[in-house]
Formats: sequence, C-alpha cells, structure tokens
Amino acid sequence: MTVMGAQTSAAPDVASTEPLAADHPGVTELYAVVAYGEISAFYRLAEEAKLAPSLRGRVAVAKMAAAELAHFETLESALTARGADPEASMAQYQGALDSYHASTDPSTWLESMVKFYVGDGLAADFYSEIVGVLPAEVADVVRDVLAETGHSQFVVDEVRSAVAASRSERDRLTLWGRRLLGEAITQAQYVMAQRDELAELVLAATGDLNGIATLFDRMQERHAARMAELGL
Amino acid sequence: MTVMGAQTSAAPDVASTEPLAADHPGVTELYAVVAYGEISAFYRLAEEAKLAPSLRGRVAVAKMAAAELAHFETLESALTARGADPEASMAQYQGALDSYHASTDPSTWLESMVKFYVGDGLAADFYSEIVGVLPAEVADVVRDVLAETGHSQFVVDEVRSAVAASRSERDRLTLWGRRLLGEAITQAQYVMAQRDELAELVLAATGDLNGIATLFDRMQERHAARMAELGL
Repeated sequence: MTVMGAQTSAAPDVASTEPLAADHPGVTELYAVVAYGEISAFYRLAEEAKLAPSLRGRVAVAKMAAAELAHFETLESALTARGADPEASMAQYQGALDSYHASTDPSTWLESMVKFYVGDGLAADFYSEIVGVLPAEVADVVRDVLAETGHSQFVVDEVRSAVAASRSERDRLTLWGRRLLGEAITQAQYVMAQRDELAELVLAATGDLNGIATLFDRMQERHAARMAELGL
Repeated sequence: MTVMGAQTSAAPDVASTEPLAADHPGVTELYAVVAYGEISAFYRLAEEAKLAPSLRGRVAVAKMAAAELAHFETLESALTARGADPEASMAQYQGALDSYHASTDPSTWLESMVKFYVGDGLAADFYSEIVGVLPAEVADVVRDVLAETGHSQFVVDEVRSAVAASRSERDRLTLWGRRLLGEAITQAQYVMAQRDELAELVLAATGDLNGIATLFDRMQERHAARMAELGL
C-alpha cells in the first residue's frame, strides 16, 4: 500500500532535533487536533454513507467510521491522562476542521471514498513527518491513531474499477483529489498560524519555516503517489 | 437498572419447550433481523447526533453508535458461520425496520435519547422472552448483542434532569414513549406475519398464538417500568 510505504520510508530530509519533552504543550494540541479530526471523520462517514449504492457499502463505511471512533477514544484517554479536558481542547480546532469538511462535501459515493482515502493518507504522512521529535510514549499513541485503518483496500477496489470503466469519472475524481489536497493544506496552514504550541512542535520536526514549506512539498508528492494507486 | 432487572427476572410465564435445533432456520432469521436492527441503529444515532446540544453529547452518541456496530459485527460473523449471506439475509427486514425509524424520527435531542433507551430495553426484553428455546451457543451470541450497551446511564441522567425541570417536556416525552412502543409492536407483528421461520422460533418460546399476545403484554409492562426510570 502506498500509504504504508509512505509511513515507513518517509523520514524528513532535515536532521531531526532531540525529542520534545513529554510535557511540551504542543503534544496536548496535537492530541486535540487529531481527536477532533477523528470524531468529525466518524460523523462525516456516517453522513456520507447515504451515498452508498448498497447495504454492503453502508456496512463497510460503518466499520470505517467505528475505526475512527476507536482512535478518538485512544486520544480522549491520552488527553485526560495529561490533565486536559478533551472537549475544551478539541473546541480550538472545530472551526478549521469543520471548514475543511464544509468545503469538501462529497456529492457522490466515489468522491466520499476518495476523500476518506486521501485524508487517511495525509494523516499518515503528517505522522511520519513529526515522529522524529515526539517522545516515545507520544509517538506510540499517535502511530496507533494515524496508522492506516485497514479499510483502504475497499476504497482502492471501489475507485479503481469505477475509473477504469469511465474516463470522465477519472477526470472528475482527479480534480476532486487536487481540491482535497488544496483545502487540507489551506486549513493546516491556518491552524499553524493560530496555534503557537502546535506550530512549535512542527517547527521542532522541520527545523525552520523553510522546513515547513518542504514538508508540504513532500506531502504533495506522496499525495500524487496515492492518487496513482487509485488509478487517478 | 430496570433493563437489566428485566433481563434476569423475566422468564416467560409459559413453560418453555426444549431448545430448538442449532440449525433451525429461525436462528438465521433472528440473527438477520437483529443485525439489520444494529446497523440501522448505528446510522440513526449518527444522524440524530446532529440534535446534540454539545460536543460532549456528540461524543457520547458516537460511542453508543460504535457499540451497536460491534454488535452488528458479531451477528455478521454468526451469519457467515451459518453459511448465510449477511446482506441478503438482512434485506428481508429492511422494510419493517426502516418503517419503524421513519415513523419515529426524533425532532429533539431528548426524543432521540428516549428512543435509544426504549429500543435498547425492548431488545433486551425480547431476548429474555425467547432465550429459553435458543440452543446454548445461539443464546450466547444473542445475549452479547442484545444486552444493555452500558450507555443507558448517560440517557437516564440527560432525560431525568430535563423532565424534572419541565412539566411540559415530561408530558411530551411520555407521549413519545407510548408512540415508540406502539410503532415497535406494529412492526414486530408485521415481521412475524411475514417471516414464518422467525414466527416459529417465537412460537416455540411462547407456546401458542395466545402466548405471543401475553409476550407483548409483558413487554408493555416492562416498557412502563423503563419509562418510570426516566422520570416519565
């Protein structure tokens, strides 16, 4: 799988600094943004399952959604263990993530599947970019949560067969994939600009602001590889 | 908890016959109807979470929905183990259960919570009515699936405090609870009339048609006790 390959082979180009202290406030922020990402993915998938062409599709999507919720619960516990209030911590990220979802509302089943696959992949890439500076116990939590959910093969099969059969569907979904990446980067930059502790964590991983720019470049390359995996 | 009390104390009045053979076709039907009940509960909860007044409520509902899906997965495996196709088996029950949900679409958060609690309770009652004729391994599967999800206390707290504070809310939700029971019995009777194998299974548990009538009477009494638990 492309996503898994990206996870293992994609150490940042810049030399990593020492791991952050376990009590770095950026860790709480990281847990919070990912936790809100998971709970919103749960509800978006449940909503988008209406687009599924069959009961089989609805069952598959329900399982994907439940996997996201299991990740959410891991992060909720991790936040509580750090003395943070999960709901209050997550509230800081509600605006950016809700905006992302509102601006990328799928209108077809295939768009929904591509969105799920792309989001899962971007999350795995982001993890591989920052893992070098995470304290070991934090890296374990984030890896469990951002690793592939194991449902990607279902998406690959659905999308590949549809785009092999229709050139116009392929063109449409190719544009859709670009739009997803663009909106994700827009919201990620917005979040970085607003949340100092999280920006510090990413800066620690990338070295400097220039490093953040090359991080986005690398994520873009891996996104392209993932789209190719879908036949796009 | 009322529901748990009902589960342990509510052996049918009629003398149970011998357990059914493990390969009785009614068992497949039972798994199928409950499986579709679980997957539709998953999606209804996810939909109704929009009514939640807070992120905390949405998180609680997502967990309830995920618990329903875990039950669904147990039944899906059990159906597959019996050589049945889960989707095809469930399709027989889609009409009745979708009708139930369409006719009991909550318009408020509290209505949604009462519906969840009532549905969970009716399922537990139904289990206690039929367990006597289920082969041991089937009884284990059904018990795991129809037992309380452990989320009922959240509902009790939400509803009790709301109805203690508002007489008109209490009256409204009392009527709502009656409507839920009525619609559930209507659809259950429809299913029994349509699906011979399932009717046979219930008849084996209740003795005769008269026994089915007293089964519904008992479920009505326990429903009233559950409503009292909610302060209704």
